[in-house]
Amino acid sequence: MRQDEAARIVEHWLSRFDGAMRVGAIEAMGEVFLDTCLWRDLLSFSWNVVTTEGLQAVTRMLSATWARTAPHGWCHDGAAMSADGVTEGWFSFETASGRGLGHVRLREGRAFTLFTTLRELNGFEERKGENRARGVEHGAIRNRKSWADLRAHEQAELGVTTQPYCLIVGGSQGGLALAARLRRLDVPTLIIDRLERPGDAWRGRYKQLCLHDPVWADHMPYIPFPDDWPVYTPKDKLADWLEMYCKVLELNFWGGATCTTARHDAARGAWEVQVERDGQTITLRPRHLVLATGLSGIPNMPAIPGAEEFRGVLQHSSDYGSGEDFAGRRCVVIGSNNSAHDVCADLWEHGADVTMVQRSSTLVARADTLRQLTSGRLFSEAALSRGITTDKADLMFASVPYRMLPDIQRPIWQEIRRRDADLYDALREVGFDLDFGEGDSGLYMKYVRRGSGYYIDVGASSLIARREVKLAKGQVVRLLPHAAVLEDGTELPADLIVCATGFGPMSGWAAQIVSRETAEKIGPSWGLGSGTTHDPGPWEGELRNMWRPTAQEGLWFHGGNLQQSRFYSLSLALQIKARMEGLATPVFRLADAIGETA
Amino acid sequence: MRQDEAARIVEHWLSRFDGAMRVGAIEAMGEVFLDTCLWRDLLSFSWNVVTTEGLQAVTRMLSATWARTAPHGWCHDGAAMSADGVTEGWFSFETASGRGLGHVRLREGRAFTLFTTLRELNGFEERKGENRARGVEHGAIRNRKSWADLRAHEQAELGVTTQPYCLIVGGSQGGLALAARLRRLDVPTLIIDRLERPGDAWRGRYKQLCLHDPVWADHMPYIPFPDDWPVYTPKDKLADWLEMYCKVLELNFWGGATCTTARHDAARGAWEVQVERDGQTITLRPRHLVLATGLSGIPNMPAIPGAEEFRGVLQHSSDYGSGEDFAGRRCVVIGSNNSAHDVCADLWEHGADVTMVQRSSTLVARADTLRQLTSGRLFSEAALSRGITTDKADLMFASVPYRMLPDIQRPIWQEIRRRDADLYDALREVGFDLDFGEGDSGLYMKYVRRGSGYYIDVGASSLIARREVKLAKGQVVRLLPHAAVLEDGTELPADLIVCATGFGPMSGWAAQIVSRETAEKIGPSWGLGSGTTHDPGPWEGELRNMWRPTAQEGLWFHGGNLQQSRFYSLSLALQIKARMEGLATPVFRLADAIGETA
Repeated sequence: MRQDEAARIVEHWLSRFDGAMRVGAIEAMGEVFLDTCLWRDLLSFSWNVVTTEGLQAVTRMLSATWARTAPHGWCHDGAAMSADGVTEGWFSFETASGRGLGHVRLREGRAFTLFTTLRELNGFEERKGENRARGVEHGAIRNRKSWADLRAHEQAELGVTTQPYCLIVGGSQGGLALAARLRRLDVPTLIIDRLERPGDAWRGRYKQLCLHDPVWADHMPYIPFPDDWPVYTPKDKLADWLEMYCKVLELNFWGGATCTTARHDAARGAWEVQVERDGQTITLRPRHLVLATGLSGIPNMPAIPGAEEFRGVLQHSSDYGSGEDFAGRRCVVIGSNNSAHDVCADLWEHGADVTMVQRSSTLVARADTLRQLTSGRLFSEAALSRGITTDKADLMFASVPYRMLPDIQRPIWQEIRRRDADLYDALREVGFDLDFGEGDSGLYMKYVRRGSGYYIDVGASSLIARREVKLAKGQVVRLLPHAAVLEDGTELPADLIVCATGFGPMSGWAAQIVSRETAEKIGPSWGLGSGTTHDPGPWEGELRNMWRPTAQEGLWFHGGNLQQSRFYSLSLALQIKARMEGLATPVFRLADAIGETA
Repeated sequence: MRQDEAARIVEHWLSRFDGAMRVGAIEAMGEVFLDTCLWRDLLSFSWNVVTTEGLQAVTRMLSATWARTAPHGWCHDGAAMSADGVTEGWFSFETASGRGLGHVRLREGRAFTLFTTLRELNGFEERKGENRARGVEHGAIRNRKSWADLRAHEQAELGVTTQPYCLIVGGSQGGLALAARLRRLDVPTLIIDRLERPGDAWRGRYKQLCLHDPVWADHMPYIPFPDDWPVYTPKDKLADWLEMYCKVLELNFWGGATCTTARHDAARGAWEVQVERDGQTITLRPRHLVLATGLSGIPNMPAIPGAEEFRGVLQHSSDYGSGEDFAGRRCVVIGSNNSAHDVCADLWEHGADVTMVQRSSTLVARADTLRQLTSGRLFSEAALSRGITTDKADLMFASVPYRMLPDIQRPIWQEIRRRDADLYDALREVGFDLDFGEGDSGLYMKYVRRGSGYYIDVGASSLIARREVKLAKGQVVRLLPHAAVLEDGTELPADLIVCATGFGPMSGWAAQIVSRETAEKIGPSWGLGSGTTHDPGPWEGELRNMWRPTAQEGLWFHGGNLQQSRFYSLSLALQIKARMEGLATPVFRLADAIGETA
């Protein structure tokens, strides 16, 4: 099909969709949607991050939100395409609140996926390009303040004599990206972090850590990495970047500041947050509290009987630094995900005698294969040369509802298994338990379902395959003074035991800082409700509680990898800005769409 | 004329030009060049920055350089255009050393300007995009070093146990931009600056200073400012940016390091540079020494009789900070260029009683008018939306030989005078002496001819016009304890006298650091040899000694505004890299082209 014919189909659909919405009935919707359809909306209709499924639910969401959203100005972007009976295209539109972008996939003239997202608020656009600040007021102005004066004043006052509208706990990529978005929207924002400097959360990790995602997916908003930035960013280099990012974008950051408790005062619609800083307790009263403390919540340190008798070093992987002191010594690493593998490799590289204890099956994939066959489609030099900018790639990725991902991923993982059969055979040969995610749906599904269970191979797998790193299996049931004991009775002599046993759930932070009751009211964060291991149902279709209103007014979760921090920070920032400006933000929830049928 | 017709003309010319070069005779060249023609070359043929003028000189340069340059692969970029009988277009080409870009302007099929520039060296391309470093070596490697280890090691060793190939004196935008280019080319480089931190040269200037050039012209290489960066960057904000730039691009910078002397050892082909740092004297032995100490050389402090009797504060504008302490006090500012105006405005804004002493006529232009009518053509949102990226804008600007600039500028300045007649009338009304550059050629010509003589109005002119800042005229011939005395006998009572009397020539640094003999051998830096005030002939057609080989082997000058620092840092870096790799770099000089006729 020619491109202009595809464009005509998308344009025609947009006009029919517009008409059907005015009618609002399921019959009218049936003309433009297939019975089996998915509509993913980020804020533009729902003031929520929500995916409705099936004609009935889609119709309910449209009927409930159409009048107040007042969508109009549908404008196809001109570059539709057709393949295998599917026609798809991008479009822009406007609502009562702002401007959005959308994407539709059609089969026989009817949509099976629709994606809509709000991109900016009317009247509260970012001041950029032609509308940027001047930096200096020309003319003669008595007692004018310099930029440095004003900036110093802001830093001295915020959190002291003036209150931040938004308080972000956690100053790594998530908190910084969100603060950068909010700064552009003129939302007074303060980031607090228990560590001293932006990036310290990365600096404190083990020495050899590099990002496992390639650079093309990792840009922060507004200041992309330069074009010679390494493919896999070393953690200290990333830390320096984040520190400069905070500085040059004039983000307000308190280091060495620990949030001890937060209490929501419903009457005042504000939080009362206690912060320990420089030995002082400071009370902050933000309207919104964002927990950006990391997908990896509180370290999961197993309580192993006999731990108090162990004479060697026992630590969580988050406390591991380097294998420098362990040459020739016996080291046991419990776990078989990313950190466990990285720690094993580092210990081996320093000449230690290393045993990995695998407790459950693991998804392994070579980093370069992963890059070529998965992320590279959207985030790579090749994608850039096809005109897929970082922003476009983010949108394209977001346009695919989670429901569709397993079917899309499965053939890719078949290809990965075929291509790297040598690796997988070698691992099986030494008894390593492999899996490829439930339903063979691969790494990204494991990531969004449970945030764990995989190793992106950057070298450790070959050590295991060559038995340079020994493999043991099962649970560690007891420690002796100089050994770890497995459930089958095997004793693993040990001078060092590293528990690469992961982290508690994100909601652990809410329980710790706010209250257990609030954490329970909110329910788990992250995961789709897929009913797979560590991701209990019911099905949500979106990452639970992420970047959208929770059951606790004014409490938000933000986190994930750099790609998610970049993209979803905009959605979260727009929600907070809209509330600050008193815009109506009626939230449409998945329950509203499925209530009568569920 | 249609665009494809214009493209055909340019393509045809390229092929005829290629053929004419093979013949090399003036007759053949006469077929492709007009008699009155200009060829500007940056390195690609000349290993120099040189403009030859007229058919004879152009032919000489081509004949002398053609065989060794071996240009080939001429490829028109497809977007030629024609207007007013002139057809112009861009093209790429290759040489024995690398890849270049060029531009030609044709009239009746013959060139009246040609611009050629080398952009990268064969085999020494920047590692970027698909060829960037990986950041981590995948696999298992005994005792591997982390990025942080390697970086710390480099910083500890460079200048101590290993020698930089290139030493840059001056760590502001010029030095940093050049160091960033050299880092990409793997040239071991050290920057030294007498101030502590990158950007301190800006931090130390008067409080209210903002860049007078708009942001679109000011990007540093590789990391552009984000799209909300203010139009006129406040000096402290720029300083923070430069500091982060140095850090995240891993430039090697010694702060608090003063270069006291440098001696060239011709036998060893290296410099012996004495540096004072932390109370120690360190000897560095770089092969190349770049003076990037600023267009504004050593402050020009006039020796005024009676200065020792003056009881108030007497300072050079480079030492001026703010008018905070001068409310209600009498202040005299000597000079009428940018700094003088800025200081007058700042003093007035703090409630001082201010008199400006104008010693000679001044070019004044409103910043916004200047932006709209001059730089905005290439550096603006409008230009960006026409596809003129920063890099393209730099090339377009560079494609215009200096010889042509006055004629291009003159009508623009007529328009500026027309548009801002109210300002100029008001200034004349109070007796302010205006000029518009010799031959009414405007500000940029003053900038490249003498680097001074103008004020970009950001507000002070209206103070002068309203007599809020008083105007006096003539030379200050003597100071009394509480006054400055003008040549006509006028006494200006003064608690503060600021000498905004400019800076000595750039070559002053060479005289100070190397030797007076070397400075004399090299001759003046900056200026075109236009024979206008402060720019004595003979005509050079290029900025003297800038970014190209000087009469002293291994000594280079780099400086100017941010636009020049960005663009010409590439030319300078390629010259240094070529020498490091032992490539042949035979320098063709203007004298070689005009020798027999001069």
